[in-house]
Amino acid sequence: MTLPQRVSIVEVGPRDGLQNEAGTIPLEVKLQLLDDLANAGLEVLEAGSFVNPKWVPQMADSEAVFQQMQRHGNVRYTALTPNLQGFERALAAGADEVAVFAAASETFSRKNINCDIGDSLKRFESVMAAASASNIPVRGYVSCVLGCPYEGYINPAAVAGVSAALLDMGCYEVSLGDTIGTGSAGSMASLLDVLLACFRPEQLAVHCHDTYGQALANILVALQHGIATVDASVAGLGGCPYARGASGNVATEDVVYMLNGLGIATGVDLDNLVAAGNAISTALGRTTQSRVARALTNPQ
Amino acid sequence: MTLPQRVSIVEVGPRDGLQNEAGTIPLEVKLQLLDDLANAGLEVLEAGSFVNPKWVPQMADSEAVFQQMQRHGNVRYTALTPNLQGFERALAAGADEVAVFAAASETFSRKNINCDIGDSLKRFESVMAAASASNIPVRGYVSCVLGCPYEGYINPAAVAGVSAALLDMGCYEVSLGDTIGTGSAGSMASLLDVLLACFRPEQLAVHCHDTYGQALANILVALQHGIATVDASVAGLGGCPYARGASGNVATEDVVYMLNGLGIATGVDLDNLVAAGNAISTALGRTTQSRVARALTNPQ
Repeated sequence: MTLPQRVSIVEVGPRDGLQNEAGTIPLEVKLQLLDDLANAGLEVLEAGSFVNPKWVPQMADSEAVFQQMQRHGNVRYTALTPNLQGFERALAAGADEVAVFAAASETFSRKNINCDIGDSLKRFESVMAAASASNIPVRGYVSCVLGCPYEGYINPAAVAGVSAALLDMGCYEVSLGDTIGTGSAGSMASLLDVLLACFRPEQLAVHCHDTYGQALANILVALQHGIATVDASVAGLGGCPYARGASGNVATEDVVYMLNGLGIATGVDLDNLVAAGNAISTALGRTTQSRVARALTNPQ
Repeated sequence: MTLPQRVSIVEVGPRDGLQNEAGTIPLEVKLQLLDDLANAGLEVLEAGSFVNPKWVPQMADSEAVFQQMQRHGNVRYTALTPNLQGFERALAAGADEVAVFAAASETFSRKNINCDIGDSLKRFESVMAAASASNIPVRGYVSCVLGCPYEGYINPAAVAGVSAALLDMGCYEVSLGDTIGTGSAGSMASLLDVLLACFRPEQLAVHCHDTYGQALANILVALQHGIATVDASVAGLGGCPYARGASGNVATEDVVYMLNGLGIATGVDLDNLVAAGNAISTALGRTTQSRVARALTNPQ
């Protein structure tokens, strides 16, 4: 197998994860999580989202998170910014990087953000211009790359199209989201075969959900295609396979375990990461969704 | 990726799975499970174990299982036979195939079956002779191929040695068991690189446990090495990640989902398989360990 020597993990637990957890999450819990994750060696932390708190109440305190968190010098702290207003809040709060998001499925785009894909991209033009002026890197998320809850199959060409648009607008990287986790090693390979005919592997990241238990196999396929940036959520935050509406982010611990076994460097200390995931799980009164954390915490 | 066009799934739930479930399992529940699995298209069913019921009480009714089950013409019904007495019981009960087992770890062998690896192999000589005389195929299991709870790292050469011994004795195939689930894509690739220097892929099967969530990625690596026989346990029977002593068999549903996505034929109908797994889980009062079953049964 030809694999990357080093993989950059984008830890999305504090944003994508917590956003989808139930209950009110105290500010100090978020601050502790970010500090624990940085101490575990993660170097990219998605720390918040500057969206309308009416729609995403879990992220209403993102300004406070950015202002009060213990910053680690080697860590990039990123934020989701759906529009110019959000970008300006993120910039004022001190985000090192921002992210915009579009869907590969027209129906999902309309149902999720009330506009078609083309319009959603137009909305980002002002964000891209402002980010460029402020020298802030912008990441692009594409959702539903391996399946849509409404349309089912998504043509890789549609993913290539929206990815190209985001990269053309100035995103330095596109994160390919298997939002509903229906992708498998086969569909991931087919998608990447198409995308890598258009883009360099350094322009792509994968964002796999483990709803169907396929995430690690799918990530392995991505690594074998030369992709070296992987999104993950500590303790599988944001997903509970027992509940309806489970989003099922792949657990960072499980990803790091696989990468360690492959001899791929990440800079992450697995024991510290497991401790961070167990701590946030305890704070939220939830069960960790990381199998590695369960196995290491409850040895046979 | 070069992959097998067809994979044979060895369904171990009715034996390896149920053997490790708590509580008394009524005979009719076992019979229903076997019938459901055959109806789902599985063609190799490990139906019982002819061992001393003092040690494995869950398998005490294996004679009754073999005698009373609804036999499907296209299905091979197999049984575990640790010694000649067990083999004779299996033969009398009508097993189509039997299996013997050894460990790749000396310490595990001594702690698990009270003898060293060499002695454990000698014990099987009479089984092999009797099976040959009766024209019954014998499968060999090797445990701890990717790690031992006592020794930790296991040298692939040790796995090669015990596998060679089993094949030389007359086993038609060796099933490589990652008994404690600590293997990862990297260690699986390293192991298979060694073994495939000695054996043909048709002589090998993989038996992965999902304790660390790595099973599907490890199976994918095996497929990429040309292995076309995969052991799995419906609903992940035999493993509960929340309990100590969890063995964590990979769920057949999750394996079939991945194989379907890879376009690899199995002959298994996933919906019927999920129904079979949900039925046995309900009968046992347990939660299915299959993520695919959870996702399909509790749609978002």
